[in-house]
Amino acid sequence: MFFASDNWAGAHPAISENLSRHAGGFTSAYGTSELDKAVEKTFCEIFEREVAVFFVATGTAANSLSAAAFARPGGIMLAYRDAHMITDEGGAPEFLTGGVRMAGVDGPDGKIDPDALAAAIRRYSPGSVHSGQVAGISVTQATEIGTVYSLAELDAIGAIARENKLPVHMDGARFANALVSLGTTPAEMTWKRGIDVVSFGGTKNGCWCAEAVVFMNPEQVRDFPYIRKRSAQLFSKSRFIAAQFEAYLKDGLWLDSARHANATAKRLADRIASSKNARLGWSVDANELFPIIRNETVKKLQEAGAAFYPWPTPAHLSAQVGPDESLARLVTSFATTEEEIDRFADLLG
Amino acid sequence: MFFASDNWAGAHPAISENLSRHAGGFTSAYGTSELDKAVEKTFCEIFEREVAVFFVATGTAANSLSAAAFARPGGIMLAYRDAHMITDEGGAPEFLTGGVRMAGVDGPDGKIDPDALAAAIRRYSPGSVHSGQVAGISVTQATEIGTVYSLAELDAIGAIARENKLPVHMDGARFANALVSLGTTPAEMTWKRGIDVVSFGGTKNGCWCAEAVVFMNPEQVRDFPYIRKRSAQLFSKSRFIAAQFEAYLKDGLWLDSARHANATAKRLADRIASSKNARLGWSVDANELFPIIRNETVKKLQEAGAAFYPWPTPAHLSAQVGPDESLARLVTSFATTEEEIDRFADLLG
Amino acid sequence: MFFASDNWAGAHPAISENLSRHAGGFTSAYGTSELDKAVEKTFCEIFEREVAVFFVATGTAANSLSAAAFARPGGIMLAYRDAHMITDEGGAPEFLTGGVRMAGVDGPDGKIDPDALAAAIRRYSPGSVHSGQVAGISVTQATEIGTVYSLAELDAIGAIARENKLPVHMDGARFANALVSLGTTPAEMTWKRGIDVVSFGGTKNGCWCAEAVVFMNPEQVRDFPYIRKRSAQLFSKSRFIAAQFEAYLKDGLWLDSARHANATAKRLADRIASSKNARLGWSVDANELFPIIRNETVKKLQEAGAAFYPWPTPAHLSAQVGPDESLARLVTSFATTEEEIDRFADLLG
Amino acid sequence: MFFASDNWAGAHPAISENLSRHAGGFTSAYGTSELDKAVEKTFCEIFEREVAVFFVATGTAANSLSAAAFARPGGIMLAYRDAHMITDEGGAPEFLTGGVRMAGVDGPDGKIDPDALAAAIRRYSPGSVHSGQVAGISVTQATEIGTVYSLAELDAIGAIARENKLPVHMDGARFANALVSLGTTPAEMTWKRGIDVVSFGGTKNGCWCAEAVVFMNPEQVRDFPYIRKRSAQLFSKSRFIAAQFEAYLKDGLWLDSARHANATAKRLADRIASSKNARLGWSVDANELFPIIRNETVKKLQEAGAAFYPWPTPAHLSAQVGPDESLARLVTSFATTEEEIDRFADLLG
Repeated sequence: MFFASDNWAGAHPAISENLSRHAGGFTSAYGTSELDKAVEKTFCEIFEREVAVFFVATGTAANSLSAAAFARPGGIMLAYRDAHMITDEGGAPEFLTGGVRMAGVDGPDGKIDPDALAAAIRRYSPGSVHSGQVAGISVTQATEIGTVYSLAELDAIGAIARENKLPVHMDGARFANALVSLGTTPAEMTWKRGIDVVSFGGTKNGCWCAEAVVFMNPEQVRDFPYIRKRSAQLFSKSRFIAAQFEAYLKDGLWLDSARHANATAKRLADRIASSKNARLGWSVDANELFPIIRNETVKKLQEAGAAFYPWPTPAHLSAQVGPDESLARLVTSFATTEEEIDRFADLLG
Repeated sequence: MFFASDNWAGAHPAISENLSRHAGGFTSAYGTSELDKAVEKTFCEIFEREVAVFFVATGTAANSLSAAAFARPGGIMLAYRDAHMITDEGGAPEFLTGGVRMAGVDGPDGKIDPDALAAAIRRYSPGSVHSGQVAGISVTQATEIGTVYSLAELDAIGAIARENKLPVHMDGARFANALVSLGTTPAEMTWKRGIDVVSFGGTKNGCWCAEAVVFMNPEQVRDFPYIRKRSAQLFSKSRFIAAQFEAYLKDGLWLDSARHANATAKRLADRIASSKNARLGWSVDANELFPIIRNETVKKLQEAGAAFYPWPTPAHLSAQVGPDESLARLVTSFATTEEEIDRFADLLG
Repeated sequence: MFFASDNWAGAHPAISENLSRHAGGFTSAYGTSELDKAVEKTFCEIFEREVAVFFVATGTAANSLSAAAFARPGGIMLAYRDAHMITDEGGAPEFLTGGVRMAGVDGPDGKIDPDALAAAIRRYSPGSVHSGQVAGISVTQATEIGTVYSLAELDAIGAIARENKLPVHMDGARFANALVSLGTTPAEMTWKRGIDVVSFGGTKNGCWCAEAVVFMNPEQVRDFPYIRKRSAQLFSKSRFIAAQFEAYLKDGLWLDSARHANATAKRLADRIASSKNARLGWSVDANELFPIIRNETVKKLQEAGAAFYPWPTPAHLSAQVGPDESLARLVTSFATTEEEIDRFADLLG
Repeated sequence: MFFASDNWAGAHPAISENLSRHAGGFTSAYGTSELDKAVEKTFCEIFEREVAVFFVATGTAANSLSAAAFARPGGIMLAYRDAHMITDEGGAPEFLTGGVRMAGVDGPDGKIDPDALAAAIRRYSPGSVHSGQVAGISVTQATEIGTVYSLAELDAIGAIARENKLPVHMDGARFANALVSLGTTPAEMTWKRGIDVVSFGGTKNGCWCAEAVVFMNPEQVRDFPYIRKRSAQLFSKSRFIAAQFEAYLKDGLWLDSARHANATAKRLADRIASSKNARLGWSVDANELFPIIRNETVKKLQEAGAAFYPWPTPAHLSAQVGPDESLARLVTSFATTEEEIDRFADLLG
């Protein structure tokens, strides 16, 4: 019953096996091998256009270097108020961009509200050197609270970005989970909506360490190889990342894994809906659930070995969470089993 | 006949297998798993003292973050003139330290000359804010040109460092190759000589991606977890690095691999010594050779499929390299076979 | 009728004259002259303790370098939500600290609320590398909206800082205005309350360009000369800053100038209180006023040559500002005359 | 007898008076006043084209922010081996560019050798991410050792820059001294030779604090206002810098002051040429002299109150400086008198 995070899971067997399969032999280093190139081609096919792909070590690196690609002096990057880049990356976005400030924008359901976004841009826009200049917008898909932007919602943000000539970054740590939740394609969820660069995460969905920065317009980012290198994110044996992505993207493994994670989350959500000791804080779009659970039930679950974290109650819910209840976060993954779900749900009562 | 670099090799089978062995199950993330802790303990045993171990993604990261740990404003890090940190890391040391300048010190055999080091420190030392302040010294062991500092040579540098209250960093991208070359222990080659922090490289010696920053005095580096995080070098599934190091350090695999690489280099050196088309530019201490080869022989070798790079002729050799000759770099690894060596040597003539 | 900002005024005649008096002759550069040393001694007398004084070019530099002195990796500096360092310094605090993030804390009257401060520290404190670590607290005295922290209010913040072993910075762009408003001494308003470093502003109060970073514990900041130099803030002809401060601090000129500015603000506040076209948004503690003025009156004033800026209406006032009214900011200075005040007030009606 | 540096002098009376003349009144801040604009226009006239002018606090700031304007990730700025930016700015160029590395190029007479420059560019150029990318070239005019690039020498550097599409910066801390030494115009010495940006120094030549970054192509530097602001170099009472430049540039005061400084240097050079206790290390082009003086004479001069610094003997001179001699640096300024020169020369013997 491991629901603490999808990064507590290991590697999908197909990915692990492919890594072993590529263990031997000699290939050129620093991303120039045939395997690296083949995987880049696969990315182009998946996104239905020529894209530029750069492997990096962590999701934080993918996000921070995406921001660095569009950094400007006195730059401000707008993201949802509680975006991972703002709250959980230890200042890496600021540090690796040379000082771009992450600024929060409000909105419902863990998503940027388009009106609030437009207002934030106006606040910084009058060419005032004192307030700095907006350099870009970042959206997280799926969001930090497990919701998913609809294509129309992404369109609204993309339109504001275009109007203000601002690039848009998508933090796709759970890109696949959002994709199968919407039942759409990578192209539809990204560049057709105005997304310029994606942090394409594989780690949380069954890889060991496979994160890529994917630019939709390769010609925009001629300096990016230098940005990655100066940030010490260029792997020498890059093919070991490529090998993971090869298996991940082959025959739809990545989508199947995400579907599985989302389905187990849905199964758990249904059980919570019928529980007398818990209820959902908000609806479940992907592989994260935020139930309000009776404190004594939390204790019981933890004593039975369930791993999950408490979650700070957002302001709009505070009136609804009683003194003997708490909000929790549960995350499912490719490796979550129905048995785990059912055992957890049975304990929940 | 792959002698371009030791990072062209893949993974040692024992390391690849251990990675697969740890593929399944669930563990806590970000370096807190039991496996991570066990590997940290192994490092303490190997270094015969309490050390602090931090995994990072690349050798450049290990070097740059080591420097960041001892960074000071207006800081200058002294290293050998052609040290990897100065010539081959794309500005990462400067960037990830927030502006520490790498400054070169001269010396013979690819090593810092102690007198030149003392002079460089004096040049910056008079408390002049204009010239900056020396923040540390970095030595590469084995060096970029395949030589190895003797313990006495390290002592001389350590003594100067202590006298000037300066920390010493060891770029150990080829730590194991140097260690077995000297036939000494990690403790003898590091903290007993005055080394404060080591970039402990596993990647070039049979891992896929396993680099660690190892501090000899854990209490000195309380802020290092934040330094690593802000540089986006904290792996979520950290156990996959730990799994590599577990196998690497078990039963002396790392030392055996390095001995093998050094021995194949020695075998090739002996063959070159008796060749009429090539001779060594300087002696071979570890797993890198720098032969002067007749240009037509270079061509013949490459046509036969041998992979290796030309190397810029150092000033002191320029008179000895004829117009129809060139200097080359050959690197052996754990995966180099005697057959390859012999085939290359036969072609060399 | 220049009320746009106190930095629209020029130099006090006594300061201008002293600068001319020191124009000739030769002295050693970079802050080592006799005059520099004499002024440093004056600062020690004023603060009633040994302090370390560093001249810099701008208030933004004083604030940013103060933060840099206490910067930590992944560091977070807490300040009032709308503090100048957060909203009006173009990212300089982030840039010149190497990535410290400015984070806002809420509170009434433009001041940090101690409870909100304690909560913010707790939010970041659990040693979680992901959220970063609090590196310091900054208070603005007088605040950006013209209010002044009482000594008790500063005490409350100082106590929280000590409890959490955090340094406290005071943005004293209007230090003198706050001081005379409270009728207290520099020692009482700073180190006796737990302040560690002050951005001591002279520019807004009658100097041309005279800002100093004043550390209460000189031994804490041995690296600060290097921090200033790497930020290009070390003047060669430093004596010209010293000459301004010499006159500024002599015979209480700085306090008299601040008293004059505050008194003219008070005179205007009294007139606004009796106006039928305007009322104060909140009380006036120093030399800034924030009246709500009828839009047609604003227009009339501007047409008559009055210079002042509109000010965004804070949330708590929004219900009180009618559709035909706006909030404005008026700032008085050492150079403001009673005639100006009266002319403006007469126009106000 | 103050020959330690031209920054030991104070302000020219005409500049000091103009500052006082502009002391009163109210004007808009942050460089938007009428006086600021008028001075910008004067710069355009002097350079015979539309230029963009930005005042900053120090020469180090002018140099570092010029570099920042053309910074690139992994960037390398080439300058003369002992350029001020490399040896005397405390790491500010690295820090304020976000990590651009200053790399030294050799040459005779304190100047970049064009062949060495071309070789350095080739060394970094092959698109190798490891070595970084050249981002620009900086020349110092007059040089750090008092020599002056001829127009033909600047042309040679400009041609290499254009060929490699690299911007060229001129460190003009002693711009005026070089200009009158060559008897040419600002246009001829800068953009007609391929210079893109100039650190235009006024401080050493009679201002108190007046440095400007002057871009030859204003449209290239739309982000520069933000670069200056994030570096805390935007003065609020900017008019006080403008007032200095107004007087400095009026009626050729700046050229007359430089001519005076150069002439007194020439007068001293002539006296040294006929001295039996000293001789010039190299020829004098502007206002700096580097004589080799007998040690006992150095002592005698210093005891008589002469202020000047010893200077490290360059390698090519080391054979010529005897054990009882030392190299010294003497700097004259607008304020140097013929009496001082003659008194010094008489003591020299």
